[in-house]
Amino acid sequence: MTQKLVMALPKGRILAEVLPLLARAGIEPEPEFANEDSRQLRFATNHPGLDLIRVRNFDVATFVAFGAAQLGVAGNDVLMEFDYPEIYAPLDLEIGRCRLSVAARRDLAEEDSSRLSYVRVATKYPEITRRHFAQHGIQAEVIKLNGAMELAPVLGLSPRIVDLVQTGATLAANGLVEIERIAEVTSRLIVNRPALKTRPDEVGAWIDRLREVVHAR
Amino acid sequence: MTQKLVMALPKGRILAEVLPLLARAGIEPEPEFANEDSRQLRFATNHPGLDLIRVRNFDVATFVAFGAAQLGVAGNDVLMEFDYPEIYAPLDLEIGRCRLSVAARRDLAEEDSSRLSYVRVATKYPEITRRHFAQHGIQAEVIKLNGAMELAPVLGLSPRIVDLVQTGATLAANGLVEIERIAEVTSRLIVNRPALKTRPDEVGAWIDRLREVVHAR
Repeated sequence: MTQKLVMALPKGRILAEVLPLLARAGIEPEPEFANEDSRQLRFATNHPGLDLIRVRNFDVATFVAFGAAQLGVAGNDVLMEFDYPEIYAPLDLEIGRCRLSVAARRDLAEEDSSRLSYVRVATKYPEITRRHFAQHGIQAEVIKLNGAMELAPVLGLSPRIVDLVQTGATLAANGLVEIERIAEVTSRLIVNRPALKTRPDEVGAWIDRLREVVHAR
Repeated sequence: MTQKLVMALPKGRILAEVLPLLARAGIEPEPEFANEDSRQLRFATNHPGLDLIRVRNFDVATFVAFGAAQLGVAGNDVLMEFDYPEIYAPLDLEIGRCRLSVAARRDLAEEDSSRLSYVRVATKYPEITRRHFAQHGIQAEVIKLNGAMELAPVLGLSPRIVDLVQTGATLAANGLVEIERIAEVTSRLIVNRPALKTRPDEVGAWIDRLREVVHAR
């Protein structure tokens, strides 16, 4: 018996944008998937050969990189942070649009940052942050946070943060301003490279199907 | 003007146990705190000198270690993982009781693990996991996950996980069994050591107050 393919989807805000796209590609999860408090971790679909899992967005990349899921949906922010060679991202799904930016307290934003040699930055993205500042010749001391980044400048943990920004309303509400964009972010279809080699027909068919759906919009 | 003290509380399951304890110590958050979807990040209390923040449990330790919060509530699992010298944990609050354990697929649980020299383990606790297996002379390759650990053995990511266990029902539902306890876990009152030195009266008074409440139960 061939093992089922597993597609890893991110919990939270992005999921509501992914599901209509999957529906247009003919993928319908079992009803329990809609229950956000479900203890169930793996879900069947209307395709006997395809299951879904719903995990944190960083974990989508981990499951796909190690081949525990063959397909997934992840933002390029996550892909940039991990830089897994086993992940191939063939298709921009054009959903979950936001940007990854440096933000700072309003009073620091006017400072000439080109004169800095050292900054302290709070972020969920330590690798991207270190690389970004290093490219400007600045050494970044990174404080890893898992959420509520905006509190860091407010409470004096770090004057700067690197975080996802959608409208900028949360930044503004906390007296912060966006000072530099590191990347535009959208969600991508990702696949495990070895799975694409060993099961090219099945994995390739889902890539083609989703590509048609995205391009038909 | 003296700066307000900030107490960092963990989001989620523990919060419902912390709030009654704070209430008995005479700490009442502003009404907006009860709104779990609030965009607000910092909350006043009935004490003009004390504010609350609500962050992820790992971040509680980070905010307190760096002195951005002077007080906090964190499990000893989090304290063991980070091992921050700046954190002092004077009081076991005797809430959030669970255990940190190694679990494995039922078919592996009977294996003689003393003969292993290498294991692959999925966990939220890379440091604790590496240390634990190293003490048994086993090298652990750790795959960091942020949630849904039970999926790792189910999908073949790793045969073993290190995770918090309360009743064991989630493990059982995924065909896993607890094979070894690493630590008993409860939530502790934690304080920033430098803050305890520079503001001993205020910080010390909250420690004493909470100690009375815990011991009165």
